[in-house]
Amino acid sequence: MSKSEIGLIGLGTMGAMLSLNIAEKGFAISVFNRTTSRTSEFHAEAGELAEQITPCDTLEDLVASIAEPRAIILMVPAGGAVDEQIAALRPLLGKDDLIIDAGNANFRDTEARAAQAEADGVPFLGIGVSGGEEGARHGPSIMGGGRKKAWDQVSHILTAIAADYEGTACATWMGQGGAGHFVKAVHNGIEYADMQMIAEIYGIMRDGQGADAATCAEAFETWNKGPLQSYLIEISGKVAAARDAETGNAVLDIILDRAGQKGTGRWTVIEAQHLGAPIPVIEAAVAARNLSAMKSERERGEATFGAAPVPLPTGALGRDDLEQALIAGKIMCYAQGFHLLNSASAEFEWDLPMPEIARVWREGCIIRSTMLNDMAEALTGAPQDNLMFAPFFAKLIDDSAPALRRVVATAVSHGLQVPALAAGLSYYDAMRTGRSTANMIQAQRDFFGAHSFERVDKEGAHHGPWGS
Amino acid sequence: MSKSEIGLIGLGTMGAMLSLNIAEKGFAISVFNRTTSRTSEFHAEAGELAEQITPCDTLEDLVASIAEPRAIILMVPAGGAVDEQIAALRPLLGKDDLIIDAGNANFRDTEARAAQAEADGVPFLGIGVSGGEEGARHGPSIMGGGRKKAWDQVSHILTAIAADYEGTACATWMGQGGAGHFVKAVHNGIEYADMQMIAEIYGIMRDGQGADAATCAEAFETWNKGPLQSYLIEISGKVAAARDAETGNAVLDIILDRAGQKGTGRWTVIEAQHLGAPIPVIEAAVAARNLSAMKSERERGEATFGAAPVPLPTGALGRDDLEQALIAGKIMCYAQGFHLLNSASAEFEWDLPMPEIARVWREGCIIRSTMLNDMAEALTGAPQDNLMFAPFFAKLIDDSAPALRRVVATAVSHGLQVPALAAGLSYYDAMRTGRSTANMIQAQRDFFGAHSFERVDKEGAHHGPWGS
Repeated sequence: MSKSEIGLIGLGTMGAMLSLNIAEKGFAISVFNRTTSRTSEFHAEAGELAEQITPCDTLEDLVASIAEPRAIILMVPAGGAVDEQIAALRPLLGKDDLIIDAGNANFRDTEARAAQAEADGVPFLGIGVSGGEEGARHGPSIMGGGRKKAWDQVSHILTAIAADYEGTACATWMGQGGAGHFVKAVHNGIEYADMQMIAEIYGIMRDGQGADAATCAEAFETWNKGPLQSYLIEISGKVAAARDAETGNAVLDIILDRAGQKGTGRWTVIEAQHLGAPIPVIEAAVAARNLSAMKSERERGEATFGAAPVPLPTGALGRDDLEQALIAGKIMCYAQGFHLLNSASAEFEWDLPMPEIARVWREGCIIRSTMLNDMAEALTGAPQDNLMFAPFFAKLIDDSAPALRRVVATAVSHGLQVPALAAGLSYYDAMRTGRSTANMIQAQRDFFGAHSFERVDKEGAHHGPWGS
Repeated sequence: MSKSEIGLIGLGTMGAMLSLNIAEKGFAISVFNRTTSRTSEFHAEAGELAEQITPCDTLEDLVASIAEPRAIILMVPAGGAVDEQIAALRPLLGKDDLIIDAGNANFRDTEARAAQAEADGVPFLGIGVSGGEEGARHGPSIMGGGRKKAWDQVSHILTAIAADYEGTACATWMGQGGAGHFVKAVHNGIEYADMQMIAEIYGIMRDGQGADAATCAEAFETWNKGPLQSYLIEISGKVAAARDAETGNAVLDIILDRAGQKGTGRWTVIEAQHLGAPIPVIEAAVAARNLSAMKSERERGEATFGAAPVPLPTGALGRDDLEQALIAGKIMCYAQGFHLLNSASAEFEWDLPMPEIARVWREGCIIRSTMLNDMAEALTGAPQDNLMFAPFFAKLIDDSAPALRRVVATAVSHGLQVPALAAGLSYYDAMRTGRSTANMIQAQRDFFGAHSFERVDKEGAHHGPWGS
């Protein structure tokens, strides 16, 4: 029996889909799952792909069935399970055998595991995989981190299974250690923000303009044909159009307004804090999820203070205004996300390939969109620059920012919540305010803490004549 | 020679001031500094307090000079220096001798040090001290954490040196381990937000209304006589009134608009993220500081897109509007801060004394204000409730929220940045929206990740009829 080209441990939804994807692309793969009945079940259901797949009941069998130097993907729950799996597997492997953590790891864990692997002289990769179940099965976006040599060992497989954007595979090596998982975290933070801004525009239509779900669906369908074309706009149209078989109501109207999260958005916010990189649009989106969970307090607030949203005057905001606002908000969100990536790249000495990040997000992942192709081009010319300053986007901002301002001001006046869009507008205004009001803050800090301040008219650290 | 009642290590500004405060209150104190010349210098400058102070050139001398069971305050830079100091000191001490870290520790470090002390069977306290140099010298606000028995050993000294609010000392034991340093961190987060909201109102006056610094000073002086009475409003008036001797200009106008930070605001944001507690006003304030540091990019943005702020129409916002907006924003900020404290109290099983936290902040610390007394009373009746729902504050919100809405909408329309005030308004509106737009987010999550959703009309986890 010939040996497999790769192995995979963990046949949950993502691991199973990724295994089928690998097999379908013509690679022989060995698979293992802790609960062995799941392995045989998976193999039995693999249909014509089953002959590419070798089910293994023990780690020893798995290792023995893979050609050397081996490469084994871990797709187990993030956290301690990954360390346990590595500890169980590593003693069975040779010095050149590669372990690839493809789970949803915090990049700091990946950094630690990579450092341990370096110390042990064995190869290790941490790769971020985005695109959910569907992406894993038919082509995810893959963000790799670790030694370039380790990436090269498996890059032919990873590019083969990745999403394809006009002939380019959405699988890229981002840098050393945790670089791949960091890029994935920022992807998820942006995903939170994209989703929140869509929900805010939906809220203006629903609560401000009295639009029913079908009308909202039509708006999203229209926008999906323009500059906002993206997976998230597309599925927003689909979920708004869907009807509940049982009640005949729009599905959107019967879904409870309490949003869950798996925590990756908060990682992005936390790392941005450590780096001092402002990402207020993403922060607003994470805060909105946390607020959504406080349902009973919100109901109490409505009873105490009256309901927040009130209808807009007829014709107050047109569909074009909403589209343009979303365009401007989206640009600000991505400008912040890429700024954060630049900050991390400098701090961790990753030398992240900025345009490649935009390219790898163009297909396969949740935030895939037409605009990411424009971002890839903009970043090619000036990878360290704020995206706002790329001529293409500066023009788009000039065109769309007035609508963002109208939308935010109108929404705020009428109790319609637009925290992420408002944060985008505020960021835009902050970024074009040469003289801010931080002089007041520096004055206060010097007054109470003698922290000193800089002057506009000469060098050095100065103190105010505050007396005592 | 009789022995000292307490010792202190680290004669930087804060340590020196705290030592003088302790001596002045009648306690004999021994002091030690790594650079011994600083110790003799300090002692020589202590004037008539010198006889209460025993300068020590070695740790051994310090320990020998203090009565048993000893208590020794560390006032050294947060981080590794504290651990090094503890490692050097502990072997010289007896089992009942208490080490008190009074520096600016991250509460997680304090938790770890407290756990180590527990394991070693020795007493340890972590206390947050707020009020800057002036507070340390004449009465800070003190937030203690650790074993209650250890607190009781030194509480007579800590309450004697703390600020006094109408006969009540601003020194309180908050709970086990890192509770004191956590409360201090939230204090600092609120401090960032208070300062930022003041800066935003200042910006509306300066850039929107063309007010000079003296006019702004007058506004702050007026407000300091009303519900906004507070140390930060008071010093805002003072810094706005101050003139530069050299140029004759207002000092405020010659201070560069690039704000520094020592990082405690970011700790608050990070911990709130871990706890899932929304504190968007504080987040906006930290983001504003980070944005202020991006001076050259802001200047580039102004050149590219034009300056953000434009003057308001004459009479657009009155001084009352600005005052009321600041009142409403402040309440939202504190509601978020106390919510965060409640979340932490539950998570870490601290049983934080909520009204006592408000009480300990009434005097001595940077955020001290009249309103904190009202908060203490409101929290006495319902310590777990959101502050918004306390009748006193619900009334104040009803009165002031319309002005906050006017101010935010007007500012946003004119490119005046009010990110923290806007976050406060958005929080208010979110907290009175029983039916939010998070149903859209749950629909999207179920569509792409099969995360399931709850329904409004029945129990359980459901999936949409999205097809494939």
